Amino acid sequence: MKRVSFADMDCTIARTLEIVGEWWSFLIVKQALYGTTRFGDFQAELGIARNVLSQRLKRLVEVGILAREPDQQGSKYPEYRLTQKGVELATPLIAMMQWGDRWEPPADGPPIEVISAGSGAPLGPLELHDQEGNRLGLGDLGYRRLRPKRAVR
Amino acid sequence: MKRVSFADMDCTIARTLEIVGEWWSFLIVKQALYGTTRFGDFQAELGIARNVLSQRLKRLVEVGILAREPDQQGSKYPEYRLTQKGVELATPLIAMMQWGDRWEPPADGPPIEVISAGSGAPLGPLELHDQEGNRLGLGDLGYRRLRPKRAVR
Repeated sequence: MKRVSFADMDCTIARTLEIVGEWWSFLIVKQALYGTTRFGDFQAELGIARNVLSQRLKRLVEVGILAREPDQQGSKYPEYRLTQKGVELATPLIAMMQWGDRWEPPADGPPIEVISAGSGAPLGPLELHDQEGNRLGLGDLGYRRLRPKRAVR
Repeated sequence: MKRVSFADMDCTIARTLEIVGEWWSFLIVKQALYGTTRFGDFQAELGIARNVLSQRLKRLVEVGILAREPDQQGSKYPEYRLTQKGVELATPLIAMMQWGDRWEPPADGPPIEVISAGSGAPLGPLELHDQEGNRLGLGDLGYRRLRPKRAVR
């Protein structure tokens, strides 16, 4: 598979994939949302090879999604914590989880549910509204070009 | 980069990425949402190599995200149309677009906006609510395990 760069494509989905679409990166961010902060814990939870994990963590720090910080307990190992930019990836990740729960569930059902930390109530489906607050369904959407498309290559 | 399978991971985000996370697949689904149906149009709009496009379309048909149908105008070329399973990928794609528009915008701004096809009003940010309808912020979320984690490898 030829690996091209999406960075210069005139599409913000492509630009998002360019920085988190590398194999494993979304799952590392997911694991960070679940509260994992240490290299060894990412490794154990995800079953990812150490060299790949090391590359991906470095890249996620470079692009400002994770911050590498001294361990709060004082060990020599750093902790990786999501920045605001990283935390906001929760929305695409939850959208992927809800789609996977519905269309590609494991035989024994989804392993994790997203909840309100305060009340414990499960999260409902992500909702679409227009800017005036009117609820929209997927069949109600259109796509408007805001400016001429730039040539890419 | 070693390419492992996410299919057996006990995580529905991983299972989603296994079937649409291949380089280009999300962008092909995005292009189908914008209304593209023909091989040549996907090729021209995305600037993707023909052999890669051919592989990805075949895979997206196999997993039930696209349906391959005779051209409605009667040409010999098939059309590729999103199934309901495919249409519902709009939510993760819009979530990635909103994240990219905010955190990785092109210098001349986002190229496309999602709108209400009926009123033309722009889409607002995707919203999180619990199942009782209470609005939640990203800082309000928790993650609850529904069953013991299965060993993967």
